[in-house]
Amino acid sequence: MKLGVCYYPEHWPEEQWAEDAARMVETGLIWVRIGEFAWSRLEPEEGDFRWEWLDRAVKVLGEAGLQVVMGTPTATPPRWVCEKHPGLFALDKHGHVRGFGSRRHYCFSHDGYRGEAVRIARLMGERYGRNSHVQAWQIDNEYGCHDTIYSYSDAAAVAFRQWLEARYGSIEALNDAWGNVFWSMEYRHFGEVFLPNLTVTEPNPSHVLDFKRFSSDQVARLNRAQVLALRPLTDAPLIHNYMGRIVEFDHFAVGADLDIASWDSYPMGFLEDRSDQPEEVKRRFARSGDPDFQAFHHDLYRAVGKGRWWVMEQQPGPVNWAPHNPDPAPGMARLWAWEAFAHGAEAVCYFRWRQAPFAQEQMHAGLLRPDSVAAPALGEAAQVASELPGVEVETGTAPVGLVFDYESAWAWAAQPQGAEFDYFRLVFDFYRGLRRLGLSVDIVPRDCADLSPWKMVVVPGLMHWGDLGVDAYEGVLVAGPRSGSKTADFQMPVPLPPGLPGVAATVARVESLRADSPVPLEDGGAFRFWREVLEGEALEAAEDGVPARIGTARRQYLGGWPDDEAMMRILREAAEEAGLETLDLPEGLRVRDAGKWRFAINYADRSWKLGKHIPGAPSGRIGAHDVSWWLR
Amino acid sequence: MKLGVCYYPEHWPEEQWAEDAARMVETGLIWVRIGEFAWSRLEPEEGDFRWEWLDRAVKVLGEAGLQVVMGTPTATPPRWVCEKHPGLFALDKHGHVRGFGSRRHYCFSHDGYRGEAVRIARLMGERYGRNSHVQAWQIDNEYGCHDTIYSYSDAAAVAFRQWLEARYGSIEALNDAWGNVFWSMEYRHFGEVFLPNLTVTEPNPSHVLDFKRFSSDQVARLNRAQVLALRPLTDAPLIHNYMGRIVEFDHFAVGADLDIASWDSYPMGFLEDRSDQPEEVKRRFARSGDPDFQAFHHDLYRAVGKGRWWVMEQQPGPVNWAPHNPDPAPGMARLWAWEAFAHGAEAVCYFRWRQAPFAQEQMHAGLLRPDSVAAPALGEAAQVASELPGVEVETGTAPVGLVFDYESAWAWAAQPQGAEFDYFRLVFDFYRGLRRLGLSVDIVPRDCADLSPWKMVVVPGLMHWGDLGVDAYEGVLVAGPRSGSKTADFQMPVPLPPGLPGVAATVARVESLRADSPVPLEDGGAFRFWREVLEGEALEAAEDGVPARIGTARRQYLGGWPDDEAMMRILREAAEEAGLETLDLPEGLRVRDAGKWRFAINYADRSWKLGKHIPGAPSGRIGAHDVSWWLR
Amino acid sequence: MKLGVCYYPEHWPEEQWAEDAARMVETGLIWVRIGEFAWSRLEPEEGDFRWEWLDRAVKVLGEAGLQVVMGTPTATPPRWVCEKHPGLFALDKHGHVRGFGSRRHYCFSHDGYRGEAVRIARLMGERYGRNSHVQAWQIDNEYGCHDTIYSYSDAAAVAFRQWLEARYGSIEALNDAWGNVFWSMEYRHFGEVFLPNLTVTEPNPSHVLDFKRFSSDQVARLNRAQVLALRPLTDAPLIHNYMGRIVEFDHFAVGADLDIASWDSYPMGFLEDRSDQPEEVKRRFARSGDPDFQAFHHDLYRAVGKGRWWVMEQQPGPVNWAPHNPDPAPGMARLWAWEAFAHGAEAVCYFRWRQAPFAQEQMHAGLLRPDSVAAPALGEAAQVASELPGVEVETGTAPVGLVFDYESAWAWAAQPQGAEFDYFRLVFDFYRGLRRLGLSVDIVPRDCADLSPWKMVVVPGLMHWGDLGVDAYEGVLVAGPRSGSKTADFQMPVPLPPGLPGVAATVARVESLRADSPVPLEDGGAFRFWREVLEGEALEAAEDGVPARIGTARRQYLGGWPDDEAMMRILREAAEEAGLETLDLPEGLRVRDAGKWRFAINYADRSWKLGKHIPGAPSGRIGAHDVSWWLR
Ligand SMILES: [Zn+2]
Ligand SMILES: [Zn+2]
Ligand SMILES: [Zn+2]
Repeated sequence: MKLGVCYYPEHWPEEQWAEDAARMVETGLIWVRIGEFAWSRLEPEEGDFRWEWLDRAVKVLGEAGLQVVMGTPTATPPRWVCEKHPGLFALDKHGHVRGFGSRRHYCFSHDGYRGEAVRIARLMGERYGRNSHVQAWQIDNEYGCHDTIYSYSDAAAVAFRQWLEARYGSIEALNDAWGNVFWSMEYRHFGEVFLPNLTVTEPNPSHVLDFKRFSSDQVARLNRAQVLALRPLTDAPLIHNYMGRIVEFDHFAVGADLDIASWDSYPMGFLEDRSDQPEEVKRRFARSGDPDFQAFHHDLYRAVGKGRWWVMEQQPGPVNWAPHNPDPAPGMARLWAWEAFAHGAEAVCYFRWRQAPFAQEQMHAGLLRPDSVAAPALGEAAQVASELPGVEVETGTAPVGLVFDYESAWAWAAQPQGAEFDYFRLVFDFYRGLRRLGLSVDIVPRDCADLSPWKMVVVPGLMHWGDLGVDAYEGVLVAGPRSGSKTADFQMPVPLPPGLPGVAATVARVESLRADSPVPLEDGGAFRFWREVLEGEALEAAEDGVPARIGTARRQYLGGWPDDEAMMRILREAAEEAGLETLDLPEGLRVRDAGKWRFAINYADRSWKLGKHIPGAPSGRIGAHDVSWWLR
Repeated sequence: MKLGVCYYPEHWPEEQWAEDAARMVETGLIWVRIGEFAWSRLEPEEGDFRWEWLDRAVKVLGEAGLQVVMGTPTATPPRWVCEKHPGLFALDKHGHVRGFGSRRHYCFSHDGYRGEAVRIARLMGERYGRNSHVQAWQIDNEYGCHDTIYSYSDAAAVAFRQWLEARYGSIEALNDAWGNVFWSMEYRHFGEVFLPNLTVTEPNPSHVLDFKRFSSDQVARLNRAQVLALRPLTDAPLIHNYMGRIVEFDHFAVGADLDIASWDSYPMGFLEDRSDQPEEVKRRFARSGDPDFQAFHHDLYRAVGKGRWWVMEQQPGPVNWAPHNPDPAPGMARLWAWEAFAHGAEAVCYFRWRQAPFAQEQMHAGLLRPDSVAAPALGEAAQVASELPGVEVETGTAPVGLVFDYESAWAWAAQPQGAEFDYFRLVFDFYRGLRRLGLSVDIVPRDCADLSPWKMVVVPGLMHWGDLGVDAYEGVLVAGPRSGSKTADFQMPVPLPPGLPGVAATVARVESLRADSPVPLEDGGAFRFWREVLEGEALEAAEDGVPARIGTARRQYLGGWPDDEAMMRILREAAEEAGLETLDLPEGLRVRDAGKWRFAINYADRSWKLGKHIPGAPSGRIGAHDVSWWLR
Repeated sequence: MKLGVCYYPEHWPEEQWAEDAARMVETGLIWVRIGEFAWSRLEPEEGDFRWEWLDRAVKVLGEAGLQVVMGTPTATPPRWVCEKHPGLFALDKHGHVRGFGSRRHYCFSHDGYRGEAVRIARLMGERYGRNSHVQAWQIDNEYGCHDTIYSYSDAAAVAFRQWLEARYGSIEALNDAWGNVFWSMEYRHFGEVFLPNLTVTEPNPSHVLDFKRFSSDQVARLNRAQVLALRPLTDAPLIHNYMGRIVEFDHFAVGADLDIASWDSYPMGFLEDRSDQPEEVKRRFARSGDPDFQAFHHDLYRAVGKGRWWVMEQQPGPVNWAPHNPDPAPGMARLWAWEAFAHGAEAVCYFRWRQAPFAQEQMHAGLLRPDSVAAPALGEAAQVASELPGVEVETGTAPVGLVFDYESAWAWAAQPQGAEFDYFRLVFDFYRGLRRLGLSVDIVPRDCADLSPWKMVVVPGLMHWGDLGVDAYEGVLVAGPRSGSKTADFQMPVPLPPGLPGVAATVARVESLRADSPVPLEDGGAFRFWREVLEGEALEAAEDGVPARIGTARRQYLGGWPDDEAMMRILREAAEEAGLETLDLPEGLRVRDAGKWRFAINYADRSWKLGKHIPGAPSGRIGAHDVSWWLR
């Protein structure tokens, strides 16, 4: 458990480096990430290398006692790379070039660019792979940020056809899998397949899903190419820093080639710009962030990293990119770090050391102000550093497993069927429900064959069962809605869904509901947005008599999207069935169990009497925006 | 009065056809529509024809006792047609290609594509035109669906110039008609005229109106080309299936070449995705549809079909394409069919027989589920089939005529003058008012010279008087707002509007009103969205003293858009003047008189005591979502 | 102080001109503006001139006693100019051509078009420059209307690179100024710089700001080219007519080359389509316009015109281009003219003489209806004409100076940091506050070195201090928020802002606030949208203890955007400190002092007892939509 910081030596006079390094060490920081956007300074013209300044920066930082995370600079190819490869830009869905002048201006399918990326990664590996100060590598930066996974370029079209040919073998197989007989969409050969943009009305969802699978594979391919270049050159772990709520590529697939997963955690920006919470909740947590959003991603990246994960960038103060960018409440820079450690993070790096007074992020806070005066987060970081030695977190297995599957996100984006249907939102609603019950959660990928480690497994909206070990699972299982509702080719299975072994349910048809028209349930709460007309013996019915849940207390299929009340009720009942104790946490107070420790984390701007809400907690109150931990 | 269904034999194993056919017959279905999207199976490569499967399908269905509606597959040109004619795609208003991958991917102005469409239609006519099982033809499918009437392609630009030259003869005449002296927009020759997209600010509305007229003519031209190909080859009636609230082309002009009009009726999808009703009404009728929307279209297509009309596609359950897609209330699949018959439909065909488990419409319900189990609508269809023999509907002439004019829709789209001004909405508001009074309505086209069949004629928003027989009309006439406010060239007439013979009114100027700022009327209710500053002797004034209505009780010009209260009051007064009895129907309950029968149709989810609301009705109640009929 | 009207002789039969002219004179109009859109009639083919009709029009109008404003027709190049210069069209930010068919269809950077514009201007100058009837010139029309300042054409890209090279000299200097080391955005030479559109995420704000500066310079350049052509040919004053709330180019820079500034005042259209006021205010003033919007622009253009300014187009009745276009309340056509005169206008010209029955503006009212009957505004104009002789306005210097700076508008558009942050809105909020206190205001440009004429100076949101004479200023100064927060290169200054001499404040960081989350101030009211975390000794603090204002009563920096209550309180306190008397005007009632006269202007639709609200006013009431003036 270490703290760190992101640093850009190329932004500052060399004279300042040593002083900066000393101050980092003094603060208690151990990791320092550098290099990620520095290509134009490392190779200002093709083949004209300027390694010396970076050599010196590594030396200064390392000799001050810091460990370096070296970033490959491939998220920002310099101007000359773009001139050399004029086709490297992605095209948006309208066919407009997404050009030079900011970042992430490349198409993942462009072979020429992949060559350049591998070349610069290899050269960096050769130079720094055995440097004792360089203890970790970051490959590229924030895949998918700014909606950059999907490109409609010629390079993408060519690569997509190859990908399809590899997948289907024959065009007849593709026509069959997609059901192209519908609307005379049949192809005669792979060369006739275009990308699924610019169609008159919606394209075939199977076409869309395959394009999304392909696009995800292209990310993994480019990442893997850099991994293969670096592996022989270094023993340090390879990492990528993912972004919040980016579901356009499969993080598990990318993560499979890496050693550590990390993510960039901007709790307040994310609440403002990518949350489904009502405005009132956004208002209430505007200075702290959503109480569950960070935890969800911590658990997700612990899974993606096969247990090893970091926060590579941690918000330290106001950012510049959300619709509104207020100041975090005092204490949050400490709370966020501690929450990450409570979920098992090996490291938390604040972004960034000193606020840059120029360019796009000049209004993005750092640990220091542009005038090098300490910003509020510096002291909070130092406090965390001083507290860390007392705690050693071993996460172990959580009582509850929650399946999160990128392919399902693509499937329901291709076919929402109702305006509000969003896979992340659905899974996150279940996650929030579990958290409000005080339960700790592991995220489980869709190909997890052995679910036995968890006392309870929750599977909302899983497109198809695939390799998930539901058959053999003997714990408490809550599945649905929409789970098992498609074949791998994105067709409806016959016999009809859900096809969940041991549950005699049939989804006769589905309804997407207006937000003002939930369907009340017999035992309280309601289904909102989505409900299925189930056939089978009802464990619980809706007020209109249609079965809402089918199966048993230990193994049930849920035919709708529960609102908050129904969610809490159903999950509590399942948890009790699984022998788990549940709490009833007030808004903003959360609990995380990790090994021998229990953490309480308070996102609310009021204090709580701990023991009242969490039996067994130490006496006394937890303050607003405070964190507390004790041996359980 | 017959029921039918839409079927896609190419979607199912041939072994299943006979069983499907038998089950259709057993249900009481008589018509079966096939072929409409099957081009890639009929001609997978140019000139490589595979008629045999369709021959067998027609045989199996026909010999089971069904009558076939054969569709020409021209709404979905297969991939090879698009490769042969790379210019056949439409361009959107930004200049983006609207390409292959869904349907309706052609520009109506492309000569090469028209050739292909005529060729395949002729070949189908040659093969099936005299087949005794093929008793009707459908040409293409849903012209205008997915906003496909307007294309900004090169083919369209070339054709538009020819169209203009034919209309105006000389460029001077065009410059004059459009008033191109304004803003130096004058052309020197027809080759200089471009399509009215991509202009810096709004283009000349006369330019826009002519482009809309041209675009409508192109639809009629392509339809007529297929008609001309088929006519010599078959005696069966030719039909097109229109869509709800599509006003971008003149259905009367297309209908003039056909024998029967039909439309595709999706009451719930339409309420969700193309209704002006407030959200509260959408919520209330989410499972039944707008109580007047279907009736309006039934009356419209009875006019377009010169008395002969069908519902070619009838929603049977949840669809896949609206923002929300709930289940219809029990009974609605029956109610909708009966309502169509009450308005004079010859046939109602459910869409579709079996839900397809693949491609774009895999979530669109059919009469059967994908696993061939009966969906709820199958039983309701069977009930309708069993009830039909007891009723014979002859529509006759309704007491009220309501003028509906596509050109006026284009005019006010080109020049709304107020954000809420929409021609369909305006006319439909009048229609709803008449319906709530219990009045049956005929839709009247703008060129109807003899209005004497109707006791009362209502003319809202008619751009110019043209050939409409208002001069000689002696019944009760309610005209306006905006009626007669333009010349045929889309200029303001001098003397000023309305220019209605027998009514000494002048529209001094007009006001478009904020939705929160209606203008109250002296006798109750208000004008909303639109009001005219009239000069003349007031039949009624607004509260601010400006005349609101001018003329007499039998012949009046209305200078505004009445809200619900004013609408009911004014129409009731006029109906009484015309000697018509009026009702005061509660929400969701409607009446339709057809020949000797009176039908009551209840869209509400509650029952009503019939006699209380409809004097002369049989005693007892009408249930929720029920229909009732008696001899009047 | 004269009235006038806009007239298009080319729209009407020549026989009508003399009668129109006589009627104008009879109404009391003196100025008549002609020619501005007539290029296609003056030169229908290249080099084929038809001056004769315009000669005759000038003669008829002039001999009737009118003074002509001659407009150069360069806002509407005719079709042949566009064919000769196919690259003259602007491109929008997506790269779509903005083509022929309306107006303003040219890119300011196109050299060929500049040549054409200069040529036609010179030819008109040669023909009419010494014509005794032509007493003023208007160059082009409404620069920037329809978002036409920014073009992403090739011509613009080429010109931008030249502009950058001239500004920076070396590419290293540009890379430095923009901070292009960030995200590897460094350029090797000027040819690599593209326009800041089509980037993946936001471009560098320094890049954006320079593009905005460049685009503004291109407007000034084209305007100046026409000025240089006309100067030798005429002694009449040269004018441009600006539009309301257009901030995309520097009006002071354009105005520097001209003799008189003018603007086109459409109070009701502007309230509907470009106001930040809540809907309720829009509703209340829908028939009169925002009570401060016109006054602000009057004061602005008095500054732009160095004291000489006109209203070139005055709304006379309903217009055609806002979302809603109601009728002005009776009296407004008089009130608006009088308000302009009260602010020092030399002339007010109504737009237009007679409503044109054709083309885009056929629903735009004139003083006459299309049938030549007087519209209501004609009588009101005549009334103004009859009242004018009794009043002579000399504006003098107002007690308060308010700095308005176009560059700051561009800066905060490039980097709003909060969704609601808009520079015009911020400055206008201060202006409204001053007006509600009864204070008359002068707009002050950013390069005003001597602020001593004003007793009080207000400087909200000034990007950098530049040449503004704040150091030496001894009056009462209220500066901020955001003032001085950038260097000229759009970097953050170190030491941190505001850098206001004499005020020991530091902006440690800033917060952009949700609209639902204002920060309450100790002494009443709140900051909304924006607040800064100030360091220094608080003159007033927020309720959370953070300093809200720093400095002294005579010289203070304000760290936030005051809401109405705080604004009135803070400005009143400052005004009292400056020895100014303040009022507390009710909604819609405003005061303007000009030389010896005090004017009261009532935008409300109710009357007020004057003396109750304005001490020293004559006894009696001011009616709804009335204006009143007296010697003070
Ligand atoms: Zn585009
Ligand atoms: Zn980042
Ligand atoms: Zn259809």
